[in-house]
Amino acid sequence: MAGADLYGVMGSLRSVREFSDRPVSDEALRQILEMTIRAPNGGNSQSWRFLVLRDPKVRREVGRLYLEALLQQVEAATPDEVLARPGITRTLRDAVHLARHLGEAPPVQVLACIEKSGVSDPGSSIFPAVQNLMLAAWGLGLGTVLTTVWRHRDEEMRALLGVPDDIEMAALIPLGHPAKAYGPPKRRAIDDVVSYDRWSG
Amino acid sequence: MAGADLYGVMGSLRSVREFSDRPVSDEALRQILEMTIRAPNGGNSQSWRFLVLRDPKVRREVGRLYLEALLQQVEAATPDEVLARPGITRTLRDAVHLARHLGEAPPVQVLACIEKSGVSDPGSSIFPAVQNLMLAAWGLGLGTVLTTVWRHRDEEMRALLGVPDDIEMAALIPLGHPAKAYGPPKRRAIDDVVSYDRWSG
Repeated sequence: MAGADLYGVMGSLRSVREFSDRPVSDEALRQILEMTIRAPNGGNSQSWRFLVLRDPKVRREVGRLYLEALLQQVEAATPDEVLARPGITRTLRDAVHLARHLGEAPPVQVLACIEKSGVSDPGSSIFPAVQNLMLAAWGLGLGTVLTTVWRHRDEEMRALLGVPDDIEMAALIPLGHPAKAYGPPKRRAIDDVVSYDRWSG
Repeated sequence: MAGADLYGVMGSLRSVREFSDRPVSDEALRQILEMTIRAPNGGNSQSWRFLVLRDPKVRREVGRLYLEALLQQVEAATPDEVLARPGITRTLRDAVHLARHLGEAPPVQVLACIEKSGVSDPGSSIFPAVQNLMLAAWGLGLGTVLTTVWRHRDEEMRALLGVPDDIEMAALIPLGHPAKAYGPPKRRAIDDVVSYDRWSG
């Protein structure tokens, strides 16, 4: 697997919400998963599980639940109703695009899960791995986005995928080739979000 | 700043609990913070704050609270009592070492914080940034460890650092030069933690 510059990849990572249906190679998927499980986690208990969804039928069902969940979250009846809203943010427009097409593309979705009881703070033991996944993918030219909106359909997702009740489904990460080019992320200046020795502002 | 290989750094990252008191340069700290804030976060609201603790007095106080919290968690009266336990795990022994010395080394601690109300799932909006921080540091030869045990002293930490009640203190990350060399992390095989299309096992 070719190398990639850590700071270049980390500094340019973007959330991708427009994907092509171009396949993700087994080799790339394996490399990404190998990096995912190197992440730190509470007590190295590795109480995580990664569900890799490739079956078109399963992905279509997830896509359907995802769209329902997004519409519930934004209190809308249809995607078009959301898109017609004046002053709609780009993120929301992109989220609607993702929700509409998730059943078709990208060709892979990863559901990152963690045992609820295995660690004192589940989030601290799964999201570092999720970030590794996204960075490893980006280094290979593959896009991802960390999504949680489908939790409005947590029960239906659980039933669809057979996920036991003692497992927290933490993030669904679509994974595939971006359908367009992405510039660097927009962020506030460091000095806006860093304080020294004591909270300020 | 020199380059570093993404997969090499990600694949070798270890939790460091033995630090030297060798200084961390301003340039390195800045590079690490620049990378930290590139992480994805809910709605790009960047509802995070990073407290960089360098004042020896502040670090000493945090170290004191940290040790108290660890002893509470493992139900022990003194560090020596913990170390004398038969069958003590290496992680716990290392945690005691960290807790005992945190007030002196490393020369930097970062407290990663997130607004409780700004995002639907605070963990998903702060731990990717924490992972970026740890990877960026490791790429520069600097060690870190994601700690949460001090939460047993959440109120005291909050008072010490002036952190408002609507802010979640998510992770305290000691940052500095490792006092020893670390081999690659030990992890279960991918096939133990990955399922395809449906939960299994």
